[in-house]
Amino acid sequence: MKGKGFLIVLSGPSGAGKNTLIDHVLPRIPNLKYSVSATTRPPRPGEVHGVDYFFVSDQEFDRMIANHEFLEWAEFVGNRYGTPKAFVENEIQQGHTVIMDVDIQGALQIRRRMPDAVLVFLLPPTLDELRRRLNKRGQDALEAIVKRLEHSAKELEYIVDYDYYIINDDLDKAAERLAVIINAERCRVARADLNALQELWQRRQNGDDL
Amino acid sequence: MKGKGFLIVLSGPSGAGKNTLIDHVLPRIPNLKYSVSATTRPPRPGEVHGVDYFFVSDQEFDRMIANHEFLEWAEFVGNRYGTPKAFVENEIQQGHTVIMDVDIQGALQIRRRMPDAVLVFLLPPTLDELRRRLNKRGQDALEAIVKRLEHSAKELEYIVDYDYYIINDDLDKAAERLAVIINAERCRVARADLNALQELWQRRQNGDDL
Repeated sequence: MKGKGFLIVLSGPSGAGKNTLIDHVLPRIPNLKYSVSATTRPPRPGEVHGVDYFFVSDQEFDRMIANHEFLEWAEFVGNRYGTPKAFVENEIQQGHTVIMDVDIQGALQIRRRMPDAVLVFLLPPTLDELRRRLNKRGQDALEAIVKRLEHSAKELEYIVDYDYYIINDDLDKAAERLAVIINAERCRVARADLNALQELWQRRQNGDDL
Repeated sequence: MKGKGFLIVLSGPSGAGKNTLIDHVLPRIPNLKYSVSATTRPPRPGEVHGVDYFFVSDQEFDRMIANHEFLEWAEFVGNRYGTPKAFVENEIQQGHTVIMDVDIQGALQIRRRMPDAVLVFLLPPTLDELRRRLNKRGQDALEAIVKRLEHSAKELEYIVDYDYYIINDDLDKAAERLAVIINAERCRVARADLNALQELWQRRQNGDDL
């Protein structure tokens, strides 16, 4: 039975591993669609336009803001990032689950505009593990990383506005938890097709031959 | 990280397969405890006191009501059933998940007394499957079954007061869904140990050597 679609927002401080976790979960869950963000930052090596991001100019980003085409947008370390609204709304209307990753301020913007969205706070693991992961991003200047860490110093306070949390101590376990959250949300009465349930019930009630 | 315990209430019309589903799920989930009900009905063959039910006399049941020892209780086809409060509260305080099965009126009583409880509505499958299952209960008089079906005619209306629903079309799939719901509820921020998360966060923030 197909229920209503919804948006799942994976959020948390930079370095928590949001992208890696989404990449790990996407192939494992049917009808789960990734919301590709638009950004003004230049592509990193290997990143593909329309897959990792829509890479747009500052002028194009301005135009999208003016046309109210974003569900949320933010400036981050000198670049702008935004979630195009049309894709998310269209997929949800088709009963699909849309997943996106966004920083904490963005998640709170989404909550205000889509109270039905499911917010998941991803916590980075131990410091050693975090250092290992950040080091792998050779192209990130150390300065940017330090800026991000300072930026996130107070971010845990916002966890109380989230629905779920996952500690990213182990990629497979974290992916399993995220899958569990998505599958449970699909069982919510609030997302059920109540007409279809009513039909099923009627067929059962007609059991006068029992 | 151990979070707060909670109560999961599996409910729905008689014949939906609540007991079978719980039996299937209990061994698969750690720290999941079954709340044994008290009842005045006589044991069926094979039922064990303290495992399936606490079989008590009418006088003992009266005493438990008078002492406010029930989380909910109800009369059903001439017998009384109740959920002893002490066990549930004690297990929750230890951080465990408690699961119980109860009829719909009982679930709504629980919701009023424990707003934090998770309510799952179990829908019976097709009529043929339902007939097959009911026939296996040789000891149930047909009259009692018919009474139950009449009793449940309007019960679907209450589904909107529940958090989740599961269609019991296939025992393994239904058990998987119930497990998913329980595991997702364990990832809720509202049940998190925020002090422990704060500690984890502090360890991460002390990364001035990054």
